[in-house]
Amino acid sequence: MKDNGAAEGLYLDDLQVGQEFLSAEHFLDAGQIIAYARQFDPQPFHLDEDAARDSFFQGLAASGWLTMSITMKLLVQSLPFAKGVIGAGGNIAWPRPTRPGDILRVKSTIREIRPSRSRPDRGMVQVNSLTLNQQDEVLQELTANLLVFRKA
Amino acid sequence: MKDNGAAEGLYLDDLQVGQEFLSAEHFLDAGQIIAYARQFDPQPFHLDEDAARDSFFQGLAASGWLTMSITMKLLVQSLPFAKGVIGAGGNIAWPRPTRPGDILRVKSTIREIRPSRSRPDRGMVQVNSLTLNQQDEVLQELTANLLVFRKA
Repeated sequence: MKDNGAAEGLYLDDLQVGQEFLSAEHFLDAGQIIAYARQFDPQPFHLDEDAARDSFFQGLAASGWLTMSITMKLLVQSLPFAKGVIGAGGNIAWPRPTRPGDILRVKSTIREIRPSRSRPDRGMVQVNSLTLNQQDEVLQELTANLLVFRKA
Repeated sequence: MKDNGAAEGLYLDDLQVGQEFLSAEHFLDAGQIIAYARQFDPQPFHLDEDAARDSFFQGLAASGWLTMSITMKLLVQSLPFAKGVIGAGGNIAWPRPTRPGDILRVKSTIREIRPSRSRPDRGMVQVNSLTLNQQDEVLQELTANLLVFRKA
């Protein structure tokens, strides 16, 4: 344990509603879209540019769960909670497809802080995370319930 | 287009509330958990058995988004919609951690069918998907809003 709060990470006591966290960027290319799709979401519009052209997406689109997975990578870097980013669940929406060439970044805002009544060492924090591309278009909106601990 | 409805896949007209779909099984091991974590969720409790022992999870646990990614793989196989499994979003919860050695399968139930008023060729279908392990414990509950097309 270090004395420096920032190095140690943030506890429930350190958070406030409205607080914002910005992530680094992730550059997405067709190779990443296809590799994820092969493993987890093998549908033509995620696998093949030609097949995707005639689909609902009218061109290669990332699986929404790849957008979410990259978002998680960016959240692990940008939400500096002392015991990690531990989710109980949440709500997710994809207003538009994620495309090859998109540069993703995540802007998170603390929406609600609920200390646990039964377990005084922790609380649930509701965090809204927008995944944006280089045109500031919203690719994904995640509202997650995260478990955050109090300072011991 | 084939005459056989099953080979062609299911359209909005073919679905009814309460209809169930069962997936195949997926065997999860520590290697898969660590590989996903390295790429998308590099936190100690997803990366390393020893580090995980002293964490909230008290042992290696899969990223919830890996549980979701495997669920998607099983949904692509088990929800035979004619134009694919296309999600607009949904709600997700993880009542307990997914562990190495778990055998995952997904049980999906159609909850709601809402034909679009503005676009008569399609509708939104709410599907509840439980991801279970070999002890029938619920690892994940997903309620997804899926875009399903009508027969042309």
